[in-house]
Amino acid sequence: DARFDPKEHQHLRYNPLRDSWILVSAHRMKRPWAGQVEKPPEEQIPRYDPRNPLCPGNTRANGEVNPDYESTFVFDNDFPALQPDAPDPGADQHPLFQSKAARGVCKVMCFHPWSDVTLPLMKKEEVVKVIEKWVELVEEIGITYPWVQIFENKGAVMGCSNPHPHCQVWASNFLPNEPALSDRCQRKYYEKHGEPLLLEYAKQEAEKKERVVVESSDWLAVVPYWATWPYQMLLLPRRHVLRLNDLTTEEREGLADIMKRLLTKYDNLFEVSFPYSMGWHGAPTGPHLKENNSHWQLHAHYYPPLLRSATVKKFMVGYEMLAQEQRDLTPEQPEALASLFYCYL
Amino acid sequence: DARFDPKEHQHLRYNPLRDSWILVSAHRMKRPWAGQVEKPPEEQIPRYDPRNPLCPGNTRANGEVNPDYESTFVFDNDFPALQPDAPDPGADQHPLFQSKAARGVCKVMCFHPWSDVTLPLMKKEEVVKVIEKWVELVEEIGITYPWVQIFENKGAVMGCSNPHPHCQVWASNFLPNEPALSDRCQRKYYEKHGEPLLLEYAKQEAEKKERVVVESSDWLAVVPYWATWPYQMLLLPRRHVLRLNDLTTEEREGLADIMKRLLTKYDNLFEVSFPYSMGWHGAPTGPHLKENNSHWQLHAHYYPPLLRSATVKKFMVGYEMLAQEQRDLTPEQPEALASLFYCYL
Ligand SMILES: O=P(O)(O)O[C@H]1O[C@H](CO)[C@@H](O)[C@H](O)[C@H]1O
Ligand SMILES: O=P(O)(O)O[C@H]1O[C@H](CO)[C@@H](O)[C@H](O)[C@H]1O
Repeated sequence: DARFDPKEHQHLRYNPLRDSWILVSAHRMKRPWAGQVEKPPEEQIPRYDPRNPLCPGNTRANGEVNPDYESTFVFDNDFPALQPDAPDPGADQHPLFQSKAARGVCKVMCFHPWSDVTLPLMKKEEVVKVIEKWVELVEEIGITYPWVQIFENKGAVMGCSNPHPHCQVWASNFLPNEPALSDRCQRKYYEKHGEPLLLEYAKQEAEKKERVVVESSDWLAVVPYWATWPYQMLLLPRRHVLRLNDLTTEEREGLADIMKRLLTKYDNLFEVSFPYSMGWHGAPTGPHLKENNSHWQLHAHYYPPLLRSATVKKFMVGYEMLAQEQRDLTPEQPEALASLFYCYL
Repeated sequence: DARFDPKEHQHLRYNPLRDSWILVSAHRMKRPWAGQVEKPPEEQIPRYDPRNPLCPGNTRANGEVNPDYESTFVFDNDFPALQPDAPDPGADQHPLFQSKAARGVCKVMCFHPWSDVTLPLMKKEEVVKVIEKWVELVEEIGITYPWVQIFENKGAVMGCSNPHPHCQVWASNFLPNEPALSDRCQRKYYEKHGEPLLLEYAKQEAEKKERVVVESSDWLAVVPYWATWPYQMLLLPRRHVLRLNDLTTEEREGLADIMKRLLTKYDNLFEVSFPYSMGWHGAPTGPHLKENNSHWQLHAHYYPPLLRSATVKKFMVGYEMLAQEQRDLTPEQPEALASLFYCYL
């Protein structure tokens, strides 16, 4: 056997939050690319567009008029994937044709009255307002629903259909697959090792400093060892925090700060408003508020699709859909990490 | 409670091959779409392009010259994600930084000497040749490797970087996540019910006739009850067959026939060369050849990305990545199934 070098040799890496393996192949970036090229994001987004249903004062699809909001603005999604009153399919089903009730609420949250800003371009105080609204929503909707998913699809390449800066909040009467899996994994680790998986992980990464991209006294942003997307990021507090609404005032301000720094690095990497899907995972809510959830640690996942440039993304297709997630460079290869790390801030 | 109507009311459906749930929301297709629009596939692909590394007689990236092949042509991928000799990372690792050896081979298989054909446009005898080559490869590579993944990425929107009709074969020294999960699910079902999951499923669907799109005496193509992609398809033999190389001569011919019919329906749906990723799942090979794999049933998955038209796809992004797969129409809604079913053949 030759000596194993993780930067040179293909290998599998374990994702402890999903109990699954990722195929890591170094140097596949070198292959010629004659495939799909994405349109770069629109450069000229008007600050106010009279036809944009997310702008202040405009009328939405259902006839409602938006207030002249000056900070964040939350409203019910006009085309919700989840509604509070869906009837129950009933029991007594064939094991191969099983269905269950799905109830919940879907909300849209505008970050800012202007269409031509994004989180990294907003003032720190404005980002703090976004975080405070997230806290409020988790607190409020989390009373009833076991899972409140806050997520942002940024950029047309990530299926975002409106350039106005916004995120969504989908709450459900069930624990969706991903958080259910993450809950099981974190619980098992806690039972075996007596400490939260992600606290130990943050400690290790803070020491190694191999994959850390931005850090502060309260927060850490790291390309996880098990990253599948080229510039994937895990953002987590250094303290043991279960949910967004457990953050202190200082931690919220620190979060605004580190988000701005991280997202500015993203934008600078390919000199483009960096697309991604991101979202928060914290301890489940609703009926789970009464349970012991010490195994949980609050964190955000950032999944950006770009691979080689502002216009060439990574396709998670054939092999990835049918067999296993695969990446074309290691998370530590200079093309991936260092370029982001040293990226002008 | 109102009466539950699966075509009207949001609900969850269980995917028994992946032990997970899909959020099914009817009528989300009605929301306005100002998001990304895909380029329709190139109309004018030259039959022979002197610069295309997949054409007969041309020189590839590594300097090798393709033969003047007249049917299928298989060669080793010049930028393999898996290689036979990758060294072992070694044991004794921190539980949060685990890696494993990944060894294997990656092959490319051209379907036809011409760049301007696709499987549905090829003659039936030519498609039979493709199937026979698949059989040969599974047989040959399957002697050593536990998993041989045959997959086709079709169309630029599915990350395909070369319009020449081709598929790939990636074989690995490990069972990837997806087949490992499918193996566990099929085994559990078999242990509990005493018959293969997919045989019982095919029987049920053949009776219900609600989701069947094409059928023949040997084969069945059905939009699975748990489909996540709008026009997802499951193609499976009616007889209990473990692997591609267990198909009889008649079944191979029947397969060529049903593939041509299915893929023609796809092409006719939006009058475009229909993009998809597809691949075969059969009982594991290599060391598993000696085991009892009666719980397995051979099948192909087709995952097409299109949602509304030839240029608007379904984005599996924020909620889907962070929480749970979600679809915007039920598999039985006329927009989905019937249009495909009645589509001119
Ligand atoms: O191997 P290709 O065709 O260059 O690449 C394509 O298929 C691979 C296997 O699904 C993916 O990993 C790549 O992202 C995709 O672009
Ligand atoms: O709700 P939107 O922004 O219209 O839609 C976007 O996000 C949803 C949630 O991730 C996805 O289901 C859609 O495919 C995507 O286009």
